[in-house]
Order: sequence, then structure tokens, then C-alpha cells
Amino acid sequence: MKFTVDRTLLQRALAHIHSVAEKRNTIPILANVLLNFEGSTLRLTATDMEIAVVEEIAAEGPTPGSTTVPASVLFEIVRKLPDGISIEFNHPESDAPLKLQAGRYATNLNVLPVDDFPAMVAGDLPHRFVVPAATLKGLIDRTKFAISTEETRYYLNGIYFHVAGSGPASTLRAVATDGHRLARVEADVPAGAENMPGVIIPRKTIGELRKLLDEGAADIEISLSETRIQFGAGPVLLTSKLIDGTFPEYERVIPKGNDRLLRVGKKDFAASVARVAAISTERSRPIKLSLTTNLLTLSAISPDQGVAQEELDENTVTYDAPPIEIGFQARYLTDITDQIDVEVEFAFADSAAPTLVRDTGFPSALYVLMPMRV
Amino acid sequence: MKFTVDRTLLQRALAHIHSVAEKRNTIPILANVLLNFEGSTLRLTATDMEIAVVEEIAAEGPTPGSTTVPASVLFEIVRKLPDGISIEFNHPESDAPLKLQAGRYATNLNVLPVDDFPAMVAGDLPHRFVVPAATLKGLIDRTKFAISTEETRYYLNGIYFHVAGSGPASTLRAVATDGHRLARVEADVPAGAENMPGVIIPRKTIGELRKLLDEGAADIEISLSETRIQFGAGPVLLTSKLIDGTFPEYERVIPKGNDRLLRVGKKDFAASVARVAAISTERSRPIKLSLTTNLLTLSAISPDQGVAQEELDENTVTYDAPPIEIGFQARYLTDITDQIDVEVEFAFADSAAPTLVRDTGFPSALYVLMPMRV
Repeated sequence: MKFTVDRTLLQRALAHIHSVAEKRNTIPILANVLLNFEGSTLRLTATDMEIAVVEEIAAEGPTPGSTTVPASVLFEIVRKLPDGISIEFNHPESDAPLKLQAGRYATNLNVLPVDDFPAMVAGDLPHRFVVPAATLKGLIDRTKFAISTEETRYYLNGIYFHVAGSGPASTLRAVATDGHRLARVEADVPAGAENMPGVIIPRKTIGELRKLLDEGAADIEISLSETRIQFGAGPVLLTSKLIDGTFPEYERVIPKGNDRLLRVGKKDFAASVARVAAISTERSRPIKLSLTTNLLTLSAISPDQGVAQEELDENTVTYDAPPIEIGFQARYLTDITDQIDVEVEFAFADSAAPTLVRDTGFPSALYVLMPMRV
Repeated sequence: MKFTVDRTLLQRALAHIHSVAEKRNTIPILANVLLNFEGSTLRLTATDMEIAVVEEIAAEGPTPGSTTVPASVLFEIVRKLPDGISIEFNHPESDAPLKLQAGRYATNLNVLPVDDFPAMVAGDLPHRFVVPAATLKGLIDRTKFAISTEETRYYLNGIYFHVAGSGPASTLRAVATDGHRLARVEADVPAGAENMPGVIIPRKTIGELRKLLDEGAADIEISLSETRIQFGAGPVLLTSKLIDGTFPEYERVIPKGNDRLLRVGKKDFAASVARVAAISTERSRPIKLSLTTNLLTLSAISPDQGVAQEELDENTVTYDAPPIEIGFQARYLTDITDQIDVEVEFAFADSAAPTLVRDTGFPSALYVLMPMRV
């Protein structure tokens, strides 16, 4: 194998894929990136056996071939080479080191056999459709904060993508919940997705996919089966196993008929939550919202430090329902308001019932928040 | 106690002093900031019993008094209040909470008795002199990387400030070493410092002092005794205990007569060290420098990953002495080159002897580096 590749192209490709390779060397080959050179294309592959990322970039050279080298070391080296330089790869035979030369820098990297590199079999992926990158970004960014980190509830450790409803009223939905809060965002059903099964995409896959969505590809090609999903983003192909579990029937926890409506400016509300919560150094800082007509009082008590409160009035608050007092974790409130641009709408039932939160500027997103006693 | 203070002024003062207060509540009063209001001045004090920082800012109000509240909570609250707002402090009696009001935000903070707040006694400080902030910055920034973190060698856990030589040839010196490398920087002896004792300023004090040096005070007033040092930087007064130990006779480890001189461009050298070191994932990455006339070859071997090397030639290297091969820890090399702007000068004796490193653009700084076997 012998070829030359542009350092900047290679660095960008390795930035996409090196984090999929396993850092901890439990299985050494999984720390490696597979390099295949053929024709005028270098194909790079990394996998942790749950996710595989493949990227193709332009390269030139006389001798096709393939080998594997440590992904993190290669990425560090390439990152530190100057912009604009060409890197020559030279691998004479299967267990000899890979020679890499760039200007007067040269390295011999130890290789592991290509045959040991695990292939990730995607199998048949019968459902194929295209989603604009911006749409996918919106679905992910507005829901991923609610993904559960409890490993025992593995079926909540991802975002549930599925088609809800049928016919013209159907929507593509992303849903995540950790039992304390839930995020649900809708988009149009793309042609070809109508009969897709509901799938739970693991958190790590979401993270790797999210990196690719800022890279300029306008459309993401998605293919999936019951057990695998594949995302095509320009020159990158990300394949992932899906979580083998049943997502709970989340519709049952979305309250209907919550009719005490509060509208409040997002910026004022978020700043006020942060100030009032600053009194407490606990992790689960509780905040109490007390509402009367067009007046919201936020308050917090810390047994050690004291009490804090702030009022937001009709300049930023609209509320025209019977008074209510209700408590939430400060961080859960800000996790949601972080997704909202201008104005937040809360719909309360009573102090003990789930509260509905909406972005008045983005009606296809909906959040549910469980109150806590304060 | 009742007064009003500008939020921005208070935030800046708390930024200087809150990190001196103890985060861990072993002694609760040490987590607090002491507030004294009198005349038109608010004085804030924080201490960990090793360091005390006092800052005075303008405030207005009818009732003088003092109390103590948690420094980190007060800092968090003030930081989150909007710029330009006034904050009213109101403390009616000694064990009642402190009321703080800003716009429609209000808090009651639990206080601890002023009498429990430990006073840091500076005692008599017979040596008094003034050092330009820029000079002090240079002395600290070029030496602090070499401060030892080994707690058993407590006498190396700081920067040794002392006057070396006598008469017109004397210099003010800052020295730090961890046994593997040493940094020594010189400045003019300020009037009043001639007879100062050599003092070891603890690492934490150096960190707190360093923050103050970017705040615009042109001159720093220093007063010291054998056991205490005080820095006056504009409205801030930092008092610290000194390390009670004997700094080693460092002059003995500074080699004389190292006559194999290498001059190399700092940027090329540092980039090359980083690239060659990237082959190894160990913490103590060894780098070998091999020198022949006007040619420097850097190389590294990693048992797992392979080998790497790079040549720097007469475009950036000047070397006109017998060939030499010598090894150093990559991080120790870059810790020193980070202090150097344009050109590095190495003076070698042989592969096993301490090497002298200088900044050709800043002759008052000198570094010693112990080689390692490679």
C-alpha cells in the first residue's frame, strides 16, 4: 500500500471517526482505524462493535492495500502536522510497520492485521429516506438532554424515533425521557419512512451523528431495520446497532387539559431561575414558582445558606388563572429553557401533576416536567 | 449595617477573593467572606488561615457594621445579577440573616459571627519595596511551571524570591525547581529590598497574586518579614504565610562550562517536539535530540505504537560542536519553550549532564533541565 493524502482532508476525516474507536485497550484492534486505499480513494473505518463510521477521502498513489493503526495516535500526529502538507503512507507488507512521511517528519507505526478488524454487518436495511440535516439537528438538540443515564433502564438510554399517527396527520417524532422530564419533537414524515419501525438510537450514536450534522451536508440519508440504523452524511457513513428494548408508552404521561397557562420571556425567566437557585449548592436545587395574576414569584430555600426570591411581573409574565404554587428542580427547568428562544409557555394542572412546557415560537416541540415537593 | 454597592464593583472584588475562602467546609467560617461597611467603604476579607485577601470598594449607606456570609454563594448570586444594578445590603442585628436586595430579587443569607472570623496577623514587615506589575508577572510566569508538587518536599512547593550577589551586581531572583528542572529569572533589585531575607512563596499564594497582576495596577507594593509577605495591588491587599523551610543551594546544579551550543527557532522546535511525542501515549514521553552540524533530529520510540522522527536543518538550527545525543521528557521541553518567544539556546555538556536552556531574547531567564536515558 502506498499513497499520498492531503493533511487537512485526513485530519477532518479522523476528527469524525477517531472518537468511535475504543480508547481503553480491552480489545486492541478496536483502538485502531482501518485504512483501505484503492483507485483514488482512501477509506477510513473505526468501530467499537456497536457503531462503525466509514469515511472516504481523495488520495493518490501507485499501490492499493489496507492495514490498521492506532486511531488516537494517528489523529494526534496528523493534527500536529502543518496545514497544507502532503502525507505519504507506505506499507510494504502485512506485519511490517506503516511508514508515514510528511516533509522531514517520519514515523513507523505498528500495525495490527486487517483480518482481525471486526466488520460491522448492517444487514438488510429496508426503510430508506432522506431528512434535511437542519431538521435532524432540531430533533436531536431539543431532546437529547432528557436521555436517561440510568444503565438499568437501558431502553431510555437513547432517543426514540418513530412515526406517530397515520396518513396526512402522521409525524416523525423524536422522544427522550428519564422519568423526570420528557421531550418530544415532531417533523414531517419523509417519503419512505411511512412504515419504519420505532427505533431507539443509543446516546453514543446520537453524539457521533451530531458531530457530522455541522459539516455542511444538506441532507442525511437514513436507512434502517429493526436492529440497525445507517446515516449517510456526505462522505461519511455511520452505522449503529439500535437499543433492543421497548420504549415506554410515553403518550400516557403527556397531560391533557392542563389549563393554567403561564407565558414568560425565556431570557428573564432563565436568568431569574439561575439567580434564585444560586442560594443552594445542592445538586437537586428546588425552585418554587408561585403564580398570581400576571405575577410570578420564584423562590428557593437552602437549609445552610438562607432563602432567595425574585418577582417577575406583567412586563414579562402573562398569567390569568387561579393562583398556584409548584416546585421543580432548577436544572430541569433550565435544561428545557435552553432549548427555547424567546418565550416559554407552561401549562399547569395542579402542584402535584405533570406540567406541560412549550416553546411558543416552535410549536412542534413539547416538554413534560414532573414537579417536586418544595 | 445598611449600604448599597454597585454590582459590577462587587463582582470584581469577589472574583479576586472568593477563591481564597475554603470550599470544603471543615471550618465553616473559612467558607465565609467578612464584610465591613464604614464611611463610604466596603471592605471584603477572605482567608484560609494561610492567605488573607482584603479588598476595599466604594459603597454608600446610613449604617456601618459588619457580618460574614458564604463567599461562594454571594459570588454566584452577584455574578448572576444584571450589570449596572445596585445591590442593597441590610443586616439589622448580629445573628439575623443578611438581607440583600437588587431590583425585584431578594435573598436572606445566613450569617456567622464576625468574632469567629480569624484575623490573619501580618506582624511587623520590615522590608518594603515596590515592583512593577509587569516585572513581577515575568518573574512568576517564567518560573511557576517548575514548582514541585511533591508534598514531602514542601520547601520546593513555591517560588524562592531572594537577592543574589551584593552591591551594583546584585539581582532580585525568582527560582523554582522540582528536582528535574529549574527555572531562574532575574530582575533589578528594587530600592528597599537590598536586605530582604530569601523567602519561599507558596504555590496557592502565587496563583492568587497572579490573578491580581492583570487588573491594571502598575506597581505592586511588597512588604515582608521572615514569615509573612504582603502584596498591595491597587485596592487589594494579599497577605500570606511563607513556607518555613530552606530552599536548596540551587546554584550548585546550574552547570558551568556547557559549551555545545544549539540555537533553534522556538516555533519549529516546539511543533516538532509535539509531533514526535505524539507517537507515545505515556505520561513521561521521552524525546531524543541527536545533533550534528546544523542538523537536529528529534526522535521518539513507543514500545506499543512504533517510532517517529523529524529533522530540523540549518533553516532553523545553528549547531557547530561535536555530535551529541541526549534525551528529555517531552513535557519538560515544552514547559520551557512555552516561556520563550522566538529562539531557544541549549548549552549541552554531555548526554548525562544537566543542560542549560536560555531564551536568546530574554537573557535574564535561565533554565536547567536534567536529561533522561533514551
